[in-house]
Amino acid sequence: MKNEKFRFELLAADRATKARRGKLHTPHGEVDTPVFMPVGTAGSVKTLDNRDLDELGAQLVLANTYHLYLRPGHEVVRALGGLHGFVNRPRPFLTDSGGFQIFSLSELRKITEEGVRFASHIDGSRHLLTPELSVEIQEALGADIIMAFDECIPYPATHEYVRQSTERTLRWTRRCLDAKKRDDQALFGIVQGGMFEDLRVWSARETTALDLPGYALGGLSVGESKEQMMNMAAFALPLLPDDRPRYVMGVGHPEDVLDLIAQGADLFDCVMPTRNARTGTLYTHDGRINIRNAQYKADGRPLDAACSCYTCRTHSRAYLRHLFLAGEPSVLRLLTLHNLTLYFELLRGAREAIANGNYFDYHAAFRGRLGAPRL
Amino acid sequence: MKNEKFRFELLAADRATKARRGKLHTPHGEVDTPVFMPVGTAGSVKTLDNRDLDELGAQLVLANTYHLYLRPGHEVVRALGGLHGFVNRPRPFLTDSGGFQIFSLSELRKITEEGVRFASHIDGSRHLLTPELSVEIQEALGADIIMAFDECIPYPATHEYVRQSTERTLRWTRRCLDAKKRDDQALFGIVQGGMFEDLRVWSARETTALDLPGYALGGLSVGESKEQMMNMAAFALPLLPDDRPRYVMGVGHPEDVLDLIAQGADLFDCVMPTRNARTGTLYTHDGRINIRNAQYKADGRPLDAACSCYTCRTHSRAYLRHLFLAGEPSVLRLLTLHNLTLYFELLRGAREAIANGNYFDYHAAFRGRLGAPRL
Repeated sequence: MKNEKFRFELLAADRATKARRGKLHTPHGEVDTPVFMPVGTAGSVKTLDNRDLDELGAQLVLANTYHLYLRPGHEVVRALGGLHGFVNRPRPFLTDSGGFQIFSLSELRKITEEGVRFASHIDGSRHLLTPELSVEIQEALGADIIMAFDECIPYPATHEYVRQSTERTLRWTRRCLDAKKRDDQALFGIVQGGMFEDLRVWSARETTALDLPGYALGGLSVGESKEQMMNMAAFALPLLPDDRPRYVMGVGHPEDVLDLIAQGADLFDCVMPTRNARTGTLYTHDGRINIRNAQYKADGRPLDAACSCYTCRTHSRAYLRHLFLAGEPSVLRLLTLHNLTLYFELLRGAREAIANGNYFDYHAAFRGRLGAPRL
Repeated sequence: MKNEKFRFELLAADRATKARRGKLHTPHGEVDTPVFMPVGTAGSVKTLDNRDLDELGAQLVLANTYHLYLRPGHEVVRALGGLHGFVNRPRPFLTDSGGFQIFSLSELRKITEEGVRFASHIDGSRHLLTPELSVEIQEALGADIIMAFDECIPYPATHEYVRQSTERTLRWTRRCLDAKKRDDQALFGIVQGGMFEDLRVWSARETTALDLPGYALGGLSVGESKEQMMNMAAFALPLLPDDRPRYVMGVGHPEDVLDLIAQGADLFDCVMPTRNARTGTLYTHDGRINIRNAQYKADGRPLDAACSCYTCRTHSRAYLRHLFLAGEPSVLRLLTLHNLTLYFELLRGAREAIANGNYFDYHAAFRGRLGAPRL
């Protein structure tokens, strides 16, 4: 399917790994890949404002269809100019299909061929989300990239269950394509298949036959082991066409993202940097620390001496720990800025390394620091 | 008492009111008066960072001795360079004496001549705060202005109770002076006397006889009516010497601050702009709104068209209401920025008006807008 307003440009390929350096052209600007998308569930990356996102260098932000459909309602967002107008951020957005949140947040859900019936986690109200409604909502939200409606298959699941679900997701993807009216949004398909290689092969073949502008791997990081996840991603990524962006949904820690880049993935989103920050868990260039730990009580050093973020330039571990224990709301933003900066710096470094053909060394160096003794 | 590192310069007096335009010179820089101090209880103005304070134009920030003594402990703050180092904000701070918080937050408090025994609101641990300990803590915190230890007398109270308490506060003030070792902090005395004019006269006379670099009115906004508060402030402010800064503690709404400026007050602090923001109550140039109100659901206008803050330049009422109802932490900072900007703009305008000799008109114009029909 051609989309004149959306184009993926492959700029460089690494020598020793499958890592790729690319550029997404969208109606609201360019996105350098590999890219990490911060999660702006309800139209706001938790604790941050738009200036913070610009300072981070965020080019693409994810927003959640399920949340915005339930509150404030997609018609309110449409009336205020879609996500770009509502949030007042004239840069690229991606919306998911709502499927994942129905399975992880809502109650009383029931899957039929038509769609998914569920009860809102906010007020218990009953809803039926179908592929057609998902597209209607996502067209109202107006993101640059929208996702096909799928079932995020839980783990573990039987081959029979996964087969039936994966086949239904393909039928839903076709219905999304049929329902789509706007020509300025790129619809990405989602390859399912759970932990079964034959079903991943089938799903990839059938979904890519639709000639969509991008593809995602869904159903990863849903309870399987890290090794299973990485093995399945490494197996499935080469099933996707080289000339389209590849999005691994919902993954992961910094090392997971770097691992998947080596396997040829281009887009990532994950709540971990933001959610972990709000529980006091900080990523550093050589591991993780929890700021609540008593050892930081009078520690005048920054969270991570190798980090350039505002928080590390300005504040000590002692001050941040104090704010955290005192329940000061300001600290949640300071810690979020740090964790996201670490992701953005890692991805920036990854893009440079790929362009220079030395991603293998870059990846190995980060992995090596993680293995080093903790401070 | 002379303090070479602290000087109050009276720059202009209004023509038709008692309003004064001045400048405080402190070891960490100048403070233009009249000034509003945002409240940074635990060493952080709730939801904001240091850059936000600079953008607001905050020159003087209040921190609470009671909170910092209990957590992280004044010795931790001292070890990290006092408040200026701990917070990493090389601008003027003021600390209160801890008295007010003991009376409003702690449990099991018992007042004796020695000081106040109380149980921490955090962990129930038992403490005895004395004038000497209050000074020791405040010297460790290292603020530019420190406050004498006093009893904030509740309302209502009998003449006999207020007399005894006010006399004890004076004795405590003398003990603070005796305990004071640092010569780079200005100790302000606090005039008490409750709602009794004779006791205010006595307290002002005895306290100002100590020749301190500044004086505060305490025991206002503690349960009495707005009219009583304003009448007592108007009565007591002229009892303080012209050539020292006058600080009305814990007051108030924007209109209260402007009213008290007309009576000759110079320093203000209040949790209302920050606390109200966190409950969705916003001050505007012509009143107040609560962002939760359903009428703002699809309202594309800013909170206050006359406001220049980041929030009003960037976001609609509809978006802010949505974030508030969705429980997004980012909105608390956006609303706090707005409320404090309104205070800082009002105070900036007040200083200009006094310098131009037309504070009466400036004050009346704001009062007039408050009376105008609400949008």
